[in-house]
Amino acid sequence: MVMTFIEKKRSDGERAQNRRRQVLDAAEICFGSSGFHGASMAEISKAAGMSAGHIYNYFDGKDAIIAAFVQQNVERVSMLMHDLRQKEDPLQAVLDDIDQNVINVLQPGVWKLPLEIWAEASRNPAIAAMAQQADLHSRTELRGILQLGRARRGWATDEAVLEARIEVMIALFQGLQSRIVLNPGLDAAKVIDAMRLAISAVLMLE
Amino acid sequence: MVMTFIEKKRSDGERAQNRRRQVLDAAEICFGSSGFHGASMAEISKAAGMSAGHIYNYFDGKDAIIAAFVQQNVERVSMLMHDLRQKEDPLQAVLDDIDQNVINVLQPGVWKLPLEIWAEASRNPAIAAMAQQADLHSRTELRGILQLGRARRGWATDEAVLEARIEVMIALFQGLQSRIVLNPGLDAAKVIDAMRLAISAVLMLE
Repeated sequence: MVMTFIEKKRSDGERAQNRRRQVLDAAEICFGSSGFHGASMAEISKAAGMSAGHIYNYFDGKDAIIAAFVQQNVERVSMLMHDLRQKEDPLQAVLDDIDQNVINVLQPGVWKLPLEIWAEASRNPAIAAMAQQADLHSRTELRGILQLGRARRGWATDEAVLEARIEVMIALFQGLQSRIVLNPGLDAAKVIDAMRLAISAVLMLE
Repeated sequence: MVMTFIEKKRSDGERAQNRRRQVLDAAEICFGSSGFHGASMAEISKAAGMSAGHIYNYFDGKDAIIAAFVQQNVERVSMLMHDLRQKEDPLQAVLDDIDQNVINVLQPGVWKLPLEIWAEASRNPAIAAMAQQADLHSRTELRGILQLGRARRGWATDEAVLEARIEVMIALFQGLQSRIVLNPGLDAAKVIDAMRLAISAVLMLE
């Protein structure tokens, strides 16, 4: 079958998308086993089963690969925020989602890449700027939703106060990522109860 | 002046102590700039102004240097716990210390080495075992103090519940270490207020 021009374009786009995915999957494995510094483009190209030259068609280098991971996470968070925004009571929805969100961040492997990116951000200003930009984007989305939820309940929505409470909420989840490294045997069900106490306080108190 | 045998011993011990400190200071700088993987013993020996052979008199290798950092932190936490244990109302003392503890973990550079160690722990079982052992030690000390404080107030001290709440408290502080990487401009005073809400909930609720 002869492809039309548009079909050909779409198929090229899909192929490029798949190739990018192939590189990202390989990079995630290599960063996990050797660290961002330790993993070379040669190692990533071997794991991806593509020549290094071919990879450079899709990514300028390791920084560009990290940028793609950061962007992926922004999109993932945006989808979560989109769902939350549809809820009648977004504050209650955050509390209801704690179980699932705690279980997610306690999955083995989930924290490997973020920890690698944060460690790298602490010494690489380009990575730091990228991660900070992404974080600001996600925080701003969450703040909008919490302001909406609090306004519906007639509560104060002072921006600086809400921003600090969001910092603490994110710290709770990001901190769990290091807790599971340091205490792999933690009691997830009881941690969920304790998380609910802490998040209720920052979310619900005036 | 001729040194006595005991003076000579003490002076040897002090010299070894100073040499170890010299290596640790150099290693902290090298791990910070190149990462644990990227930093070589050659780089560390250059930064310490000592030959690599001389360093091996004090440390078997990079794992042993990390072990020394982990041990230092255990001792630091033990001293904090010792002070806390002397307080009449240890729960209130934890709340009173939040300001200072938040300010401490928000210092630039404080999080560099822990992030490096946790990232390394996620791929190096020897480092993971060491960090987990240290973490267990510190958690157990803190649990004893909170049990004491809660018992004095006549509150339940179910061990598993208290352990989970301690996880959440530590997650809050460890999470702040990544928050300051991702949002260097956060409002520390307002974050302290929000931390106090969250920590009061896990510490004070029955």
